[in-house]
This record gives sequence, structure tokens and C-alpha cells, in this order.
Amino acid sequence: MSLIGGRRGRRAAVGRRFQRQRDNRCNARGRIMPPMNSRTPVADSRIRMIGFDADDTLWRSQDYFDQAQLDFERIVGGYVDLRDARLHERLYEIEKRNIGIFGYGVKGMVLSMIEAAVEITGERISAADLHRIVELGKDLLRHPVEMLPGIPEAVAQIAAEFEVVLITKGDLFHQEAKVRQCGLADLFQRIEIVSEKDTQTYARLLRVFDLPAQRFVMIGNSLRSDIAPVLALGGWGIHIPYHTTWAHENEAEIAADAPRLRRVDQAVELPQAVRELAKVAAA
Amino acid sequence: MSLIGGRRGRRAAVGRRFQRQRDNRCNARGRIMPPMNSRTPVADSRIRMIGFDADDTLWRSQDYFDQAQLDFERIVGGYVDLRDARLHERLYEIEKRNIGIFGYGVKGMVLSMIEAAVEITGERISAADLHRIVELGKDLLRHPVEMLPGIPEAVAQIAAEFEVVLITKGDLFHQEAKVRQCGLADLFQRIEIVSEKDTQTYARLLRVFDLPAQRFVMIGNSLRSDIAPVLALGGWGIHIPYHTTWAHENEAEIAADAPRLRRVDQAVELPQAVRELAKVAAA
Repeated sequence: MSLIGGRRGRRAAVGRRFQRQRDNRCNARGRIMPPMNSRTPVADSRIRMIGFDADDTLWRSQDYFDQAQLDFERIVGGYVDLRDARLHERLYEIEKRNIGIFGYGVKGMVLSMIEAAVEITGERISAADLHRIVELGKDLLRHPVEMLPGIPEAVAQIAAEFEVVLITKGDLFHQEAKVRQCGLADLFQRIEIVSEKDTQTYARLLRVFDLPAQRFVMIGNSLRSDIAPVLALGGWGIHIPYHTTWAHENEAEIAADAPRLRRVDQAVELPQAVRELAKVAAA
Repeated sequence: MSLIGGRRGRRAAVGRRFQRQRDNRCNARGRIMPPMNSRTPVADSRIRMIGFDADDTLWRSQDYFDQAQLDFERIVGGYVDLRDARLHERLYEIEKRNIGIFGYGVKGMVLSMIEAAVEITGERISAADLHRIVELGKDLLRHPVEMLPGIPEAVAQIAAEFEVVLITKGDLFHQEAKVRQCGLADLFQRIEIVSEKDTQTYARLLRVFDLPAQRFVMIGNSLRSDIAPVLALGGWGIHIPYHTTWAHENEAEIAADAPRLRRVDQAVELPQAVRELAKVAAA
């Protein structure tokens, strides 16, 4: 979703209104709860909703980018000595410089690659080789979606106990195509494709969900995009590192012993980690 | 918004449930209405919501693309005789071929331009000139938002009488940037950025809005994206042609005398056109 600005309009109010009714009736698992005393509102701290990141949390993604990067280096290596060129660093610098214009996603990365290839080769790279870089991007956009091990089972288990939503950032068109292919779309109450995952975005989404941050857990591989902003808002995080992560996504400072953060190494551990956080939250 | 698939989950049901209550209480302008007889439901045909397209309906867009196209032709014209090259047609063919991979928006167009330039020049185009094409794209992404004459007043007037939503297609990151700049975001109850505007998309959005198509009017410059799919669903359309439109957006077959379609030439005519449709709809 990309509802911005006008979000705080009538529809959001509708959500809030209904949600209060619902919370007075039953909890996230559908059990009947006593109505709260309307004169002395008690902050409900029970976990209600679990958010999942998509790229490198549900399905493989960075591997394809890494392969495209290798192919890119092979192409540019025809013009410069790769040992001297600091190719990785220079491409990353250009990508970062362009993020404010292009946003995230394959198409912006390819445009940055073209810019980097022109710059690094001193404008010597051929049209045919620049076209090969465009083709790298097309291949990235067309690769089949490959779910990570244990994920379909873990999401299904968690969805049986909590509301689950998918929150992913990047190119709308490409992310929608992957969601369609992944086979899990029906498990998610909402699928939110956003242009940036920062505290502002999560705060906006939580308003739309009518959910205080302390009742929300975000699961993802990126400390910067999935964990840090949610913890900053008072929510909970489960970090499931991927074996390879884009440098940008590792730029986050989080205390290793942050009390609202868990770390798991495999998807099979996720349902139990969620239950443990839920127990702490309800205490 | 780019909620797909999982949309038909709990949240959509929440919207539907609440909406029924609301419709029993008051109409779109907040006047108290008698509750409907729940045993003999009457189809409510009053117009409740007006959708606005954004590019070339609220603000200038195609002009910038046309200028980029001229700049593109000037660059490629350094290599081929423009009178023979059928540049327009060949770029359009490549853009159409790539839409299924790139989707809509500036970044995909620039990648198609690079592909076209390489193809049309027989791989003779220089790296520097291909880089100039990337820069054309950056300029397109950074141009200031220029509202079309009379639009702010027309949207404000219509928003005073109906719910209004913005429905625009293209690149999430770029469209969000334009919405932030346009100064009208607060008037819209929802801002929906979608990857395609076809009957499927409008049907999904109307489900989310809990709105039967016959209570919805879409205003836009594209017969293909704004008018034809909404009419096909049983909704209403107001076509406000722009002086220049991308060929793709004109590919639609609509009877000129379609009874649910109005055409206006200037934004100042929009509020009255909406009122007239609303009168016909309620009759």
C-alpha cells in the first residue's frame, strides 16, 4: 500500500472505530473477552499482529542481486583492472547517491549500474555491453520466486494464531509479481508495498491497522528496515539474518541485548519465537 | 496501495461490515437517513465517491515525457537519419514489449530508451550519449509538480460534497513524491498507487471501499485507464482529455454516447459534471 497523506481521513477513522469494538469482544485468536471498562481504559499489551518482510525473509532475493553484481563486474572487467577499480564500493556509492531519485528496486539499480559502468570505464564501455547490463536487470525481474526453507510452514503456523501482514519495500510492479507467485498471499490480512521502511512508514501503517506498536512484532532479515524502526516505536522484532545482505540494510545500531528483540537462525524457529515474545508482552 | 491477493481477508470484511452500518445512518454528505428495511434491501444508486486520476488530470506529466522523447531523438539523431528511423514507433514498440517486465513509470521508460537507442544505432551509440539518456530520466523524476489550471479549486469543491480518492498508476516512489508536493493530499480520503488500472484493479479497490460501482465516478484523461474499466464495471466516468496523451492510453473502445460518461474540457466544469451525473444516478 502506498496510502500517504490523505490516510488520516475518514477511512482510518472507520478502522479505528471498528477495531475498538472488536477488541472489546474477542482477542486475536477469536476467544471471547470481557468488555473493557470504558471509563478506565487499560493499555492492552497482548501481541495481535505479526508483520513479515518479503525479500530474503520469505523468498530468496539478494542472491540474485549478488549474481547480477558479479555479471556486472565481468562486463566492466573488460575495460578496467578489477583489482584497482574498487567496483563494489563505487557502485554502492552511486546507488546510495541515487536512492533519493530512484528509490529501491531492480530498475533503479540497473540505471545506477549503467551510470557506474560509464563513469568507471571513462566512457569507454560499448553500447552492446551497456545493453547487457539492461538485460541483467530484465533477468532479475523475471527470475522465479524461490521460497526460503521452512517459510511456508512457519507463516501458516503463525497465521493460525495471530493476524499476519506482509510489509515489503521496493518496486510496486515487481513486488506484486512476486507476491502473486509466492503462494502465500491468501494467508496475509494485508499486503503492504511501501517505498521506504522507516519509523514514519511503520507509524503510518500501525495507525491504519489501529494497532499500538507494543502489540506488533516485525520479522525480517534487515536490522535497518525491519527491526530498528519497529523497536524505536515500542514494538517487537525477530531478526532472521540472511546469509547475504545488501550493505545498506546492515546500517543500523541496535543493542545486541535489546529486550524486545529476538534472533533466530531458521524459519522453523519462528513460531516458537513469536509465542515467547507474546508471553513476555502479555506479562 | 498495492494490497493484492490477501486483500480479501479479514480487513476487507471489516470494511464491509462497518460500511453497512454507516449507510444505514447517513449519506455521503452526513445527512441523517432513515434506516433501510433490512428484510427488503434496496440498491442504493446515489453517487458516494469520486476518484481522480493524477498524471495529466491533476498535474502536468506527459509534456515532460514528450520533452524527454524529443531530447532522446536529438541524441539518437546524431547516429541515424531521423526521417528514416521511425524513432517514435520503434521506441513505442519496445516500451510496449517491456511493460510486462518493467511496468509503468520513468525508470522503465529510460531502460526501454536505452534498449531502443542501442538497437536503432546498430550498437554505435557512445557510452556518454547513453549516460545522457539516464540523465533525461533523472530530470523527469526531479521535475517540480505543476498543477493543471483550475484543479485545486475543482477538487476542493467536489471534496466538499463527496468522498474523493486519488487513484494513480506507475512508480510507487515517484508517485508518492508527486503526491507529497501537490498540496492536495489532505483532501483525499485514500491515495491508491497501483501498478495497472484495469477492471480487475478497480473491482478490487471498490471491494476495499465497500462501494458498488454504480456509486462511483472516475475522473481522468485516459480512456483506457480511467474510463473504460470503470464503465465496464457499471460505474460512471468523466473524461477530461489532456492536450497530449501517450498512445497507449488512447487504446480503448468506448461508444461516444455511452450514457454513464461525460466529457469536459476544463477542470472548472468538473464539479457541475459530477453533480449532473449524481442527479442521473439518483433518479
